[in-house]
Amino acid sequence: MSLSSQPYKGTRDYYPEDKRIMNYVFHTWRTVVEGFGYEDYLPPLLEPLELYAAKTGQEIVNEQTYTFTDRGERTVAIRPEMTPSVSRMVAARQQEIGYPARWYNIANYMRYERPQRGREREFWQLNADVFGVAGPEADAEIILLAHEIMKAFKATEKMYTIRINHRELINAMMRDYLGLSTVQAELMIKLFDKKGKIPHETFRDTAVEIFGQDAAPEGLRKIAKLISANSIDALPAELADLKPVQELQQLFKMIHSGGARNIVFDISLMRGFDYYTGMVFEVFDNHPDNNRAMFGGGRYDGLVSLFGGESVPTVGFAPGYTTMEVFLRSHDLLPEVSSTTDVYMIVLGEAGTGASKLARRLRSEGIKVAVDITGRKLDKQIKAAVKMHIPYMLFVGEKEIANEVYRLKDVKKQREQELSFERIVTSVNDYRGRNKDELDI
Amino acid sequence: MSLSSQPYKGTRDYYPEDKRIMNYVFHTWRTVVEGFGYEDYLPPLLEPLELYAAKTGQEIVNEQTYTFTDRGERTVAIRPEMTPSVSRMVAARQQEIGYPARWYNIANYMRYERPQRGREREFWQLNADVFGVAGPEADAEIILLAHEIMKAFKATEKMYTIRINHRELINAMMRDYLGLSTVQAELMIKLFDKKGKIPHETFRDTAVEIFGQDAAPEGLRKIAKLISANSIDALPAELADLKPVQELQQLFKMIHSGGARNIVFDISLMRGFDYYTGMVFEVFDNHPDNNRAMFGGGRYDGLVSLFGGESVPTVGFAPGYTTMEVFLRSHDLLPEVSSTTDVYMIVLGEAGTGASKLARRLRSEGIKVAVDITGRKLDKQIKAAVKMHIPYMLFVGEKEIANEVYRLKDVKKQREQELSFERIVTSVNDYRGRNKDELDI
Repeated sequence: MSLSSQPYKGTRDYYPEDKRIMNYVFHTWRTVVEGFGYEDYLPPLLEPLELYAAKTGQEIVNEQTYTFTDRGERTVAIRPEMTPSVSRMVAARQQEIGYPARWYNIANYMRYERPQRGREREFWQLNADVFGVAGPEADAEIILLAHEIMKAFKATEKMYTIRINHRELINAMMRDYLGLSTVQAELMIKLFDKKGKIPHETFRDTAVEIFGQDAAPEGLRKIAKLISANSIDALPAELADLKPVQELQQLFKMIHSGGARNIVFDISLMRGFDYYTGMVFEVFDNHPDNNRAMFGGGRYDGLVSLFGGESVPTVGFAPGYTTMEVFLRSHDLLPEVSSTTDVYMIVLGEAGTGASKLARRLRSEGIKVAVDITGRKLDKQIKAAVKMHIPYMLFVGEKEIANEVYRLKDVKKQREQELSFERIVTSVNDYRGRNKDELDI
Repeated sequence: MSLSSQPYKGTRDYYPEDKRIMNYVFHTWRTVVEGFGYEDYLPPLLEPLELYAAKTGQEIVNEQTYTFTDRGERTVAIRPEMTPSVSRMVAARQQEIGYPARWYNIANYMRYERPQRGREREFWQLNADVFGVAGPEADAEIILLAHEIMKAFKATEKMYTIRINHRELINAMMRDYLGLSTVQAELMIKLFDKKGKIPHETFRDTAVEIFGQDAAPEGLRKIAKLISANSIDALPAELADLKPVQELQQLFKMIHSGGARNIVFDISLMRGFDYYTGMVFEVFDNHPDNNRAMFGGGRYDGLVSLFGGESVPTVGFAPGYTTMEVFLRSHDLLPEVSSTTDVYMIVLGEAGTGASKLARRLRSEGIKVAVDITGRKLDKQIKAAVKMHIPYMLFVGEKEIANEVYRLKDVKKQREQELSFERIVTSVNDYRGRNKDELDI
């Protein structure tokens, strides 16, 4: 019996044509965050389970984390998110690090979730955080960074909305405005978190259960009022004067001045993680087929100190690859990405050794060359090149090597030219938008 | 009690200064293999354990693999190597793929090994394979690729040696020349594999046990003869006429013609994986402190067909990051790698909004700018920039913004200049060896 050729359930094999698109997204992420001075770092894939038990949230830890016991009897987890690991790293070198520390990475994660569109059990995401700034300047930078990433993919402001809330405002709303106990508040936050995904009746019935029969009518009225207002300037008097409201107003101003207009205040936005302490935000996809939160982030000032250091104010966010790919596809924003290889060399007759030599010369000029080393017939070599989506074919036989003139075929334009070595180099590098200076890096 | 800030045992936290070096190595790998037409791909991190049980080798599967049962009762493993996964992917799309398929990736792996220098439980490696070519042209390409990687790191041929052997020759040596049974041969191969790491006496005593007292003297004599010859042209008559010997002679010619001279035939080279069927090779570090195999590879023609497809001839190799880093350090080949950030913007007084605007303009010219958003005193801002190893500081106050002239400090040269916006862009891009064309990609 043979082994299955399918990937592990809920995961995906990225073939070269898929990986090219992933690399385009990664490259865009990297370019934008490095432009803001973020630096790459990397913790290990495994962490002790207790790292997540502390603050990641019960659903993820109890139901979704890949947890096991290693050969040394340690209970470990494959990271379901980056925040606890990066907080641990900052805590370990708290004194040596220069602040504001702007750190990012693009890494793989696992969660045991029900497989569905835009969700995979192994997923890749960008994680970017600023450590060491308590003021709204850091919140504004993180949200503008998310905005710049969307812009770099050529998304217009109509395609997505940035929704913003504040964890302290949520707490005040639950405790002071709705008059809920801690336990009730926790249940209500979970309910709000699911609001977009459940029928209105289910939301109402569950809310009634949480309030209790007596308090329910007044509670539901207040919730309706809050949600219908949904503007930071239209909050009820009990909430309008709080410090987080002023902070958010200041934050909105900074974000507007940074050039983003598609931001809204959304009192019903909760975010699942227990560690958030201030501003929270989510980027929503406005596509009708796909109307949902793509990714988000927020401020978490208390996490570094869990590892024994002083507390370090932190704000960050984490867009995932799969939802980003769905967004780009549904808004028709994915560019055509061809093979990384520039030239497929078709070898005629006994020209193998000369062809290899020519390939080496082309490579030394920065051209990426795959040589057909099969010795098979011409038509089969051509077919392979077409399958691989390589933009150029170069035909090399003994005659061509002797004359130092070769046939270069532009596959897309279906155009062939007889060219010298130098002209081949210029043509291909021009097509790729490269030049000599860049190749020397 | 606070949580530990240490990484999981046997693994490492890569801080920005460490990750920069890792990224330099990854970038070099990527540039070389893409130059040969290899394309990036990626299978998932987890695979069913049975994937490795088939051919990876008992030691790795039974003692080193991170294996566990998932929430759906599947027995899975974190990949300890790439070969079974990539063979599975090729089998799943055997008809659609264009051959020779040249595939590579840079991915993370885990093995539960005793932590030591140059070895980590989570490790990163490059994996590159050619599928679909049975002839020695593919073996030569893979070995020359390894050689080109070493050259790209500026290693000279004296710093390392490429050792080559052939699995069929090993089998013939064990069976026909030494007269061993299958079980004896397996033990002897394991013993050869450890030869460099154990005392000579241990080797001899174990060999005597394997041969049995009667056969031992003749067996030991033959082994000594083989090892002392250690040239492909000096093999005893019983082996000299075999097909693998001719194949290797042809291969050596091709490699020499490709420009590599530091290759040797080594009859004692075994390689641990059970799936090899032809040529095997290893790249050895010649540094006296560090004399050992850095990485290797070989031909495995039977793996794709385990997944139900036709058999596909394949040859590949996999250098790891940690051993590569040790090599580069001990031969003093690591370049100084500064921060990816170009400019640290020191913000004077109340210039925050203007500074942000200036930063946006610089970014649109491809300059990577971190803005100090703390509002703290000048000396503290400067200290942070120095800690981060950012090559330039830019001083921006209200006066500078009004006059459109700013102070740019080259940190390494300790030189300050008053410059216009345009001059800042030119200075920084020149320093990085960039130019306008490149930024448009």
